[in-house]
Amino acid sequence: MRSAFYISDGTAITSEVFGHALLSLFPTEFEHHTISFVENTEQALLARDKINKASKRAGELPLVFHTFVNPEIREIIDGCDAVIYNFLEHFIPPLEKQLGIKANPQPHRTHSIHEKSYDNRIDAVNFALANDDGTNISNYEHADVILVGVSRSGKTPSALYLALQYGIKAANYPFIDEDMEHLKIPEFLRKFKKKIFGLTIDADRLMDIRNNRISNSKYASARQCRMELKEVEKLYKKEKIPFINTTKFSVEEITAKILSEMKLRRRKY
Amino acid sequence: MRSAFYISDGTAITSEVFGHALLSLFPTEFEHHTISFVENTEQALLARDKINKASKRAGELPLVFHTFVNPEIREIIDGCDAVIYNFLEHFIPPLEKQLGIKANPQPHRTHSIHEKSYDNRIDAVNFALANDDGTNISNYEHADVILVGVSRSGKTPSALYLALQYGIKAANYPFIDEDMEHLKIPEFLRKFKKKIFGLTIDADRLMDIRNNRISNSKYASARQCRMELKEVEKLYKKEKIPFINTTKFSVEEITAKILSEMKLRRRKY
Repeated sequence: MRSAFYISDGTAITSEVFGHALLSLFPTEFEHHTISFVENTEQALLARDKINKASKRAGELPLVFHTFVNPEIREIIDGCDAVIYNFLEHFIPPLEKQLGIKANPQPHRTHSIHEKSYDNRIDAVNFALANDDGTNISNYEHADVILVGVSRSGKTPSALYLALQYGIKAANYPFIDEDMEHLKIPEFLRKFKKKIFGLTIDADRLMDIRNNRISNSKYASARQCRMELKEVEKLYKKEKIPFINTTKFSVEEITAKILSEMKLRRRKY
Repeated sequence: MRSAFYISDGTAITSEVFGHALLSLFPTEFEHHTISFVENTEQALLARDKINKASKRAGELPLVFHTFVNPEIREIIDGCDAVIYNFLEHFIPPLEKQLGIKANPQPHRTHSIHEKSYDNRIDAVNFALANDDGTNISNYEHADVILVGVSRSGKTPSALYLALQYGIKAANYPFIDEDMEHLKIPEFLRKFKKKIFGLTIDADRLMDIRNNRISNSKYASARQCRMELKEVEKLYKKEKIPFINTTKFSVEEITAKILSEMKLRRRKY
């Protein structure tokens, strides 16, 4: 199989996103390789060996996505038996012209630590964990958003992703079986109504997930899942709570929609 | 302040990474705006209004980073009072030539749900939560990696990031005060020694973090922090456990180093 390499002197996250965005436009399958922290010529030569071996193995030139700015490392990588794509190279000159200043490339610039945003993110992770699943209802005034929904509708992964990627403090509160008769917003939540965002999910998918957790239970039954989902969706509509059906969406998409709908400002760029 | 816009018909994550990678090369400050899920001409016209207003407000053309492939939406965005950067446009033609096939752009392609990787990631998040902070030591055979370190050295955020970004199952086990005299790898951990990765941190930074949690405690004292860190680092060296000092690194960098050092395969691309 043809190989695709994502390489950089840092995490290689930028190279990965850049390469994946392009390759996802094509139906071709690739063997993916990431080589991170290529910080000197010795490591660049090791990377070149890997690329050249992949080229021989597949009998096809690997695609190499990189963002190197160091000229010595670039020369080594650009000299591989491979097709090279470097998006910085193409976009830096027009941007320099537009901004009227020279680019000042530093290694580890994009995904390295930035003092303020670091604390924001770790605080937000701790907040999400401490306020997960309704365990703690006394901190909602400090929440940026409060995710509600039935058990296993995607609240916890979404709250953690909001914390890690964006430094946003998300609490989450589950509606459980006992709440379902005459479901309403609990009193302690009502005063934070503007922060509430609802999640829902298709009943079949919810049954699958719950069956994986506790199989053949009332909790995982078709009847229970359908009833709970019907009730929460009715509540969202009646109370005009913004909500999303998570079934067909990735965590990235769910959280991007939450950010957009709730007009939340990212604490990290 | 001059504005930078990141826009797409999906999460806009690709546009954000693309734009940030470029703008981080320049010392200029920008007002950052993300507009996600621009899926039709009506939404594109709303986005154009926002961009044009920002242009007027700042008296400088905003920089717009986008990845639209739909020609009608592109035409609207390209017609804004702004400087437009679209990296797909530049890289698609050479890639089509190289692969010998036409690109087949679909909306929501890059960060949308992929059946297998979705389950991997949610499973991995649940695993990280269930095996956080030594709460559960019976599941280590299912772990891809076991992070060890003193309390507040960065284990939990790293484990959650490995789960959410890469679908990797990371348990974490804390070395606590009681372990410190004659610190060694606990028996139940020893058989998984190949999975162990150590974290450490500078004593001053650890004191700050612990003081934020429980101020003026023995736990947060200089003496205690230094002693614990000295012991764990001695252990890592003696047992040849790979480790990283997290003080100066972001979660992205810490996890990229873990992946690289432990030769872990990403379960998500």
